[in-house]
Amino acid sequence: MPDVIGNLLEPNEKKIVLLVMDGLGGLPREAGGKTELESARTPNLDALAVGAECGLHLPIGYGITPGSAPGHLALFGYTPTDYPIGRGVVAALGIDFPMRAGDVAVRMNFATADAEGKITDRRAGRIPTEKCAELCGLLAGVKIPGVEISVRPVKDYRAVVVFRGQGLSDQVRDTDPQATGVKPPAPKPASEKGKRTAEVAGEFIRQALGILAKQKPANAVLMRGFAELPHIPSMKELFGLKPLALAVYPDYKGVSRLVGMEVAHDLRDLDHQAEVLKSSWDRHDFFFLHHKYTDSRGEDGDFAAKVAEIEKVDAFLPKITALKPDVLIVTGDHSTPAVLKAHSSHPIPFLIHGRHVRPDAVREFGERACLGGTWGVIPGAMLMRLALAYADKLAKYGA
Amino acid sequence: MPDVIGNLLEPNEKKIVLLVMDGLGGLPREAGGKTELESARTPNLDALAVGAECGLHLPIGYGITPGSAPGHLALFGYTPTDYPIGRGVVAALGIDFPMRAGDVAVRMNFATADAEGKITDRRAGRIPTEKCAELCGLLAGVKIPGVEISVRPVKDYRAVVVFRGQGLSDQVRDTDPQATGVKPPAPKPASEKGKRTAEVAGEFIRQALGILAKQKPANAVLMRGFAELPHIPSMKELFGLKPLALAVYPDYKGVSRLVGMEVAHDLRDLDHQAEVLKSSWDRHDFFFLHHKYTDSRGEDGDFAAKVAEIEKVDAFLPKITALKPDVLIVTGDHSTPAVLKAHSSHPIPFLIHGRHVRPDAVREFGERACLGGTWGVIPGAMLMRLALAYADKLAKYGA
Repeated sequence: MPDVIGNLLEPNEKKIVLLVMDGLGGLPREAGGKTELESARTPNLDALAVGAECGLHLPIGYGITPGSAPGHLALFGYTPTDYPIGRGVVAALGIDFPMRAGDVAVRMNFATADAEGKITDRRAGRIPTEKCAELCGLLAGVKIPGVEISVRPVKDYRAVVVFRGQGLSDQVRDTDPQATGVKPPAPKPASEKGKRTAEVAGEFIRQALGILAKQKPANAVLMRGFAELPHIPSMKELFGLKPLALAVYPDYKGVSRLVGMEVAHDLRDLDHQAEVLKSSWDRHDFFFLHHKYTDSRGEDGDFAAKVAEIEKVDAFLPKITALKPDVLIVTGDHSTPAVLKAHSSHPIPFLIHGRHVRPDAVREFGERACLGGTWGVIPGAMLMRLALAYADKLAKYGA
Repeated sequence: MPDVIGNLLEPNEKKIVLLVMDGLGGLPREAGGKTELESARTPNLDALAVGAECGLHLPIGYGITPGSAPGHLALFGYTPTDYPIGRGVVAALGIDFPMRAGDVAVRMNFATADAEGKITDRRAGRIPTEKCAELCGLLAGVKIPGVEISVRPVKDYRAVVVFRGQGLSDQVRDTDPQATGVKPPAPKPASEKGKRTAEVAGEFIRQALGILAKQKPANAVLMRGFAELPHIPSMKELFGLKPLALAVYPDYKGVSRLVGMEVAHDLRDLDHQAEVLKSSWDRHDFFFLHHKYTDSRGEDGDFAAKVAEIEKVDAFLPKITALKPDVLIVTGDHSTPAVLKAHSSHPIPFLIHGRHVRPDAVREFGERACLGGTWGVIPGAMLMRLALAYADKLAKYGA
C-alpha cells in the first residue's frame, strides 16, 4: 500500500540506520544445536535486543528463497514481486553503468572450453578482475550493425554486457548450461519479442569466441539473466527519505541505485563504512549499511567463519550506536545456513531499536529468541513502515 | 501467488507426506482444562514436534469455519475462496462418478417422513449402504424428458444425484430443512439461471416420493448442495507434484480427485493406508493420508473417543516415519471440538518436520504449545509452500 504511506509522509531529520548482515539467518549444525547467530557471542546485539522490538521477516513469502536483489528490495520497503529485477540489471547497476530504458543487460561469465567447445570450467579458473578487464577490452572489438555494445568487468570472472538499440528485449534464455562437459546452448528467444535480441547475442558470442580463441583459461563466455531496467519509484518518492547506501560489494550498490539511493564510492570495510556513515550523517536520513561476508561464509559452508563474521559486526556496532540513530534496524536479507551452503527460505531475525519502540521480552538476538518477540514472522517490506513510524515520519491515518 | 511459485518449480523425487487428522483442533471441556489433542498421550507426535517447525493454520480466514472440501483444498495449497466447490460435486467425485462440465450434482439424503410429509428423521434411521444402493436402483425409474439422471449410493443414508442436460445450473436452494417436524421446501431457484434446474429437481422429488411411498424408513429424500464442476488446476500443474491420496472416506477421495490426485481404492483403515503408502512410495512424491474418525468423534461430542482416535494415529505414526519422508506435515483440515459437536473456526495446530526445517522451542504437539512455535497463525495454503521449500522443490526467487 505505498499510496496509504504516501499520504502520511512527514519528512524530518531523524535518522534511520538499516544494518544488513547478508544471509544472516541460519540453521543448527546438528539436531538440538544452535544456529550461527545463536552460537555467536554478541553482547552488543543482545544489549540492543533488550531495548528493541524483535521478530522475524520473510522478504518474499512463505517457502520462497530470496535472491539478493529482491531480499534487499523488501528491506527497502518494496514488495519484491511488484518489481522483478533481472540479474543483468543488478550487475550493470552494481558497476555504475548508466543504463537507459530499452537497454538489455546480461551477466557474462568468462569460462574455459575444450577443443570441441564443451565447458570445462564455468568460471575460467576464477581469473582476477584485472584479467577480466583486459578481456572486456578485447571484446570491444565485437561489432554488430545497429547495436551499441558495452562490455564491462565486474569482479573476478564476472562481467556485464549491455546491448543498446531499437527493438531489443529481455526475452532471451540463458546460455549458461550450469554444468561442465557440455556445450553451452545458443541464446534462444523466450518469446517472439526476444527474437532479435537472441540473434544479436548469438552474433556477439560468435565474434567473442573468435577474439578469445587463443586466450587461456578464458576462451569462452556464458550469459545469464538478460534483463531490462524496471521502473521502480525512488525511496524519496515513496517514503520521503534521503537515503545513502554504504556497501562494499557491487551488486548491493546496484540495487540501492535502483531505488534512487545515493551510493558511497570505494568503501573498503566496516571501519571505512562507519567513517563515511559519520561524515555523511547530516546530509541523509536513511543509511543502509551492508556486510557481505556473513553470506559468503554461509555459502562456503563454513559455520565457524560465519559465526566469526557475526561477532565482527557485533564488535563494530558501537560505531553505529555512538551516532545515536533515532531508529536502528539490524537484520539480514535472507538466510544462508552454512549447512545448506546456499540461500534458504527460512525467516530472518530482526530487531528494531529506537526511543519509541515498545521493548519486548527478547533478551538476546537469535532466530528462536526473536520468535518470542513482538512481531512474529512478518513480510520484510513492513520493516520500513515500522522504521518510518518510530522515526516520527508518518502522520496519523484518518481523523 | 501461484504464478511466482510456478516459475520456481524444480520437481524432484523427494517425498512429502501430509497426514490429516480430520477435525483435529479442539477446545477444553472445562475452564482451565486441556483440549482433546493436549489431553491425548502422543509420544510420537511430541518427539516429532521437537525437531519440527510448529504453528497453527487457518484454512480460510479469521473466524471462518471450514467445510471439509475447502479445508482440504487449503492443505493442498489452494486458496479455498478462489475455488468454491459445492457439496454435490464433492459427493459425486467421492464415488468416482465421471462428472462433465455442465452437469449438476446434488447430495441426497434418504429420510423418513410422516403421513403429512413432515420429516421425522433426516437420516432414515441411518439405513445401511446396501439398502441405500437398493433404493437408488429403484429411483432409476424417475424419467424427465431431456435430462439424463444418475442416482448413486454414497454411504449409509447418503446418495448423490447427477442431472445432465442443456441449460442446467447450480443456482438452486437446498430442500433439506435441517430440522424435523417440518415439511421440506420444494427446490427453489437461487437466481434466474437456476429456474429450469429447480423445476427438474422438483419433478425428480415428486416422482421419487411416489416410488418410495411404501418404503420404511426411507420414504423421503432431502437435497443439499446443488453444484457444478469447478475448474481447478491440478497439483501437477501448480506444484509439479505427483500426488497420491490415501483416504478411506469417499468425500476426501472426491476433493483429492478434484486437484488431480491419483486416488488409492478400497482402503480400509490406517494399517491398510500405511501398506499402500509403502507400496506406492516410489511412484509418487506427495502423499495425502486422511484419518476421518477424529472428526466423527468430535461431531458425536465424545471428547474421550476423540482423544483415543488421536492416540491411535500417534501409535500409527512410526509406520510413516519409518519411510523417512523428506517432509512430513501433521495437521487437521479444521477444528471439531467435542464440546461443540461441530466444525469450528479455531486455528488448527500443525507441525512440519524434515531435514531442512529450523526446529523451534515446541516440545509437544498441541494447540497452545504450537502457539510458541515458528509460524504463529498462518493461512492453511501456505503449508504447501513450506513443504515444497523444505523438499528442495523451489528455486531461488530473483538474482
